[in-house]
Amino acid sequence: MSTSVLYMSMSVDGYISAPDDFLGGPEGHRLHEWFAPGGKFAEVTGPAAQVMEEMGADGAVVTGRRTAELMDHWGGSLGGRPIFVVSHRPPGPAARFDYPLVTYVTDGIASAMKQARAAAGDKQVYVQGGYTAQQALAAGVLDELHISQVPVLLGAGRRLFDLLPAEIELDIVRVIDTPEATHLRYRVRR
Amino acid sequence: MSTSVLYMSMSVDGYISAPDDFLGGPEGHRLHEWFAPGGKFAEVTGPAAQVMEEMGADGAVVTGRRTAELMDHWGGSLGGRPIFVVSHRPPGPAARFDYPLVTYVTDGIASAMKQARAAAGDKQVYVQGGYTAQQALAAGVLDELHISQVPVLLGAGRRLFDLLPAEIELDIVRVIDTPEATHLRYRVRR
Repeated sequence: MSTSVLYMSMSVDGYISAPDDFLGGPEGHRLHEWFAPGGKFAEVTGPAAQVMEEMGADGAVVTGRRTAELMDHWGGSLGGRPIFVVSHRPPGPAARFDYPLVTYVTDGIASAMKQARAAAGDKQVYVQGGYTAQQALAAGVLDELHISQVPVLLGAGRRLFDLLPAEIELDIVRVIDTPEATHLRYRVRR
Repeated sequence: MSTSVLYMSMSVDGYISAPDDFLGGPEGHRLHEWFAPGGKFAEVTGPAAQVMEEMGADGAVVTGRRTAELMDHWGGSLGGRPIFVVSHRPPGPAARFDYPLVTYVTDGIASAMKQARAAAGDKQVYVQGGYTAQQALAAGVLDELHISQVPVLLGAGRRLFDLLPAEIELDIVRVIDTPEATHLRYRVRR
């Protein structure tokens, strides 16, 4: 079955964005410098290139509404891959009329993940957004976490983990050690 | 000059203890299993043995009062090494009369660190406790952080980083990859 993976860049103190800086300021966000130095996407070379390759190998995307709308649904698809948006409210006009690959799922994260897995086939499901990831973890439908841990203490911002209802054991699948970030892949133990 | 290092075991979601479980329950704390499985200290073998060796190579200890009192000042010294306790209040009777190697420092973390560095000579200063570490970071007197990142999401507890006043850049000095924990040594950039 398709594996669901959260990819997230996180500071050592657990933040995934500055308080009012969701998409990065004019210089781009500090946490994204390992793949977008100075706010501009650049070719990632060295061991971290494998991470970029894996991130691009997904067959479907599950995301929260906030991220989806902030990104304008990535213009309708992420490289041709279908997008499943978890939301309790129906989609706005753009998502409803202009984006055939965007599906709003109003009956919860487990349902969204099931539909995304079916669409992804053998490929992985790319989970977007901290809130969505925590919901997926709590519902037991997130298989892996890929955290690119950036060597900075931000001191403030939005945390990746804030809503977990219970202890969750992980297994370390792989560690990629680069000066820009430590790339940690964890599998959720069941 | 002597290097000051915080050693801390931390969950992937940033906790260093369960909410009411500072010293671990009867089974010992999940975060300490990499060196004390089932709550009992055991010889650490493999690559993490280097971490234990480094932790034992300090020449002085700086700690907060809460940790010091919870640990009864480690009976007066940590393996013969002097202990500097940062506190705004004078010491209680045991620390005052029975423990000649314990010094209470009432004029702040920078002063405590200075005294500990002098006592440590060429060796490192071992910084104990999350609150003390954050104060040392904020005051610019912490040189390195050694985080043993344990593959678990605790969901609740006391966080290592909660009080930082500003962004602090780190450099990754070394990563030791073991199944029980990822040992990350960072240097604070100045």
